[in-house]
Amino acid sequence: MASEQQIKEQVQPFDQSSKDRAEQVLAGNVRAASRLITEAQNGHAAARDVLTYLYPHCGQAHLIGVTGPPGVGKSTLVSALICELRRREMTVGVVAVDPSSPFSGGAVLGDRDRMEGFSRDRDVFIRSLASRGASGGLCAVANDAVDVLDAMGKDVVLIETVGVGQSEVEIAQIANTVILTLVPGYGDSLQAMKAGVMEIADILVVNKADTPGADGAVNDLRSMDYYQAVPRGDEMWQVPILKTNARRGEGVDELVSEVFRQIEFAGKTGWKEARQKARRTRQFVDMLTSRIRSDFTDSMDKDVRVTALIQKIESMETDPYTACAEILEKFRAAYK
Amino acid sequence: MASEQQIKEQVQPFDQSSKDRAEQVLAGNVRAASRLITEAQNGHAAARDVLTYLYPHCGQAHLIGVTGPPGVGKSTLVSALICELRRREMTVGVVAVDPSSPFSGGAVLGDRDRMEGFSRDRDVFIRSLASRGASGGLCAVANDAVDVLDAMGKDVVLIETVGVGQSEVEIAQIANTVILTLVPGYGDSLQAMKAGVMEIADILVVNKADTPGADGAVNDLRSMDYYQAVPRGDEMWQVPILKTNARRGEGVDELVSEVFRQIEFAGKTGWKEARQKARRTRQFVDMLTSRIRSDFTDSMDKDVRVTALIQKIESMETDPYTACAEILEKFRAAYK
Repeated sequence: MASEQQIKEQVQPFDQSSKDRAEQVLAGNVRAASRLITEAQNGHAAARDVLTYLYPHCGQAHLIGVTGPPGVGKSTLVSALICELRRREMTVGVVAVDPSSPFSGGAVLGDRDRMEGFSRDRDVFIRSLASRGASGGLCAVANDAVDVLDAMGKDVVLIETVGVGQSEVEIAQIANTVILTLVPGYGDSLQAMKAGVMEIADILVVNKADTPGADGAVNDLRSMDYYQAVPRGDEMWQVPILKTNARRGEGVDELVSEVFRQIEFAGKTGWKEARQKARRTRQFVDMLTSRIRSDFTDSMDKDVRVTALIQKIESMETDPYTACAEILEKFRAAYK
Repeated sequence: MASEQQIKEQVQPFDQSSKDRAEQVLAGNVRAASRLITEAQNGHAAARDVLTYLYPHCGQAHLIGVTGPPGVGKSTLVSALICELRRREMTVGVVAVDPSSPFSGGAVLGDRDRMEGFSRDRDVFIRSLASRGASGGLCAVANDAVDVLDAMGKDVVLIETVGVGQSEVEIAQIANTVILTLVPGYGDSLQAMKAGVMEIADILVVNKADTPGADGAVNDLRSMDYYQAVPRGDEMWQVPILKTNARRGEGVDELVSEVFRQIEFAGKTGWKEARQKARRTRQFVDMLTSRIRSDFTDSMDKDVRVTALIQKIESMETDPYTACAEILEKFRAAYK
């Protein structure tokens, strides 16, 4: 546990250079990392500078996604995974993305409980990100947070998200290994998930294995044609289907072993590299789009030519389609 | 009801000019309008051409939003509003946006039922839009659909959407008048709604007025400080709080009268104009951002310079922050 003195030393002055701040994150400084993620979430330009320094140090951590519909015990499973990974002497970061649905507010509280449980372990860093409006934005912040924990030197970064919406699927895809969590009687929850969640699963887990019907659920999933073998790059991967009781820690050792078997497979077959590349491209396009958006919005009050254009649109003197086509033409000319 | 012959005449050849297609929509041709909305939804470039022709003809319809949490009877209320508006000899268009949550699939079926009910009335046009991934995208399609119904010459366009997420609030804001629908015991549902829904309401409706507690709910809302008067431009608007039983059509006459009282107020005070301007600006920025995104994504495989850039990002030779800043710089130079 960090002593009072240590915590005091971690307090950062706010006039540091981006390079100094990046070096503190690289040295594993929890407060520096925390502050950076908060700034990234709030869209501060300063955060981008620090992240630029961190970028070359990313790509070392194993990124493991834990997804599934609400109520399957994802938070509990993540806690159990942390314990098992710590038993194996690995350092762990967690990025927990709160669901965008206002109807299930459970995750936030659960997350606080978890943070409490691990607050004395300096090798565990848990960060929850609340859904804030635009889904593209949340995925961008999740990417940044994962990069920060990766750069801090965590051996494993767990990305926890509800697998119900398109944006959540995109967040899970940041990971190199995706664990889809279900419970006995998962039929309804499968229907509740968007198409695309099943496809990205590398490992299936039937949690709450003490519930009646757990064995039946596992057998049903094993008999699904889809899960005989899924394409992963040029090779086929046999999706393991496991039973856990996360609350008691049962089956978690085996799950972690299967995760590392998948990591080895993904590394050898080029699948990990393909996933990473896809992630970086998505991240870039998201970033470019959202920055162009905010830059343009900012300039509506400042730049005379943009102000004039907006006035023409507001007064319906020009239509948005024509105005859009004109700017797009200029943009094309600019990046080509 | 349209005769077989009339329907036959409405079938459109697919090699028409955009101008011809726009003129058919302006003449109230249902099939031409329907096809155009479908094309806009699928992102066809042809749709943009037709919409450009329609644009100067928009802005005549009263745009009325009907929002509220799931289960308050929005669909039933919209049906009752259609009946009352038709009784007043107004033509009506409806854009019903299905909720993005996969947990409440009720709206789609309900919508089909409604369409059935009004299918013989040529002066009613109901169009439902399913949530498809990106929220920005759905709002853009809703904007287009509203413009099409407006250009068709509908006196009133009703925009029905669930008031739970940020994107749904944005969709409701397309309207000039927003009706927020609640039910007795609305406390929980208010909490379920995102901040921002209460603020955009011009009229509050407590539906299912035959449920116990309806009068109490109305009194509670009337005693809320917030609803004593809300700022609308430079003036204050006293939000009417009404009771309806949409299933029996009770209270709907009064609701429509209050809507037109608000429309008059909004017209006189400049609030309607302010809302319309804000809508046009939002629509334009959404359009610009999504077109830049798709244009850039398309060019990743085609344009050598973009391909080279993406390869550098994938191999982590350059970081996305630096690459983004470079393109943004060029973009700024382009539009300024």
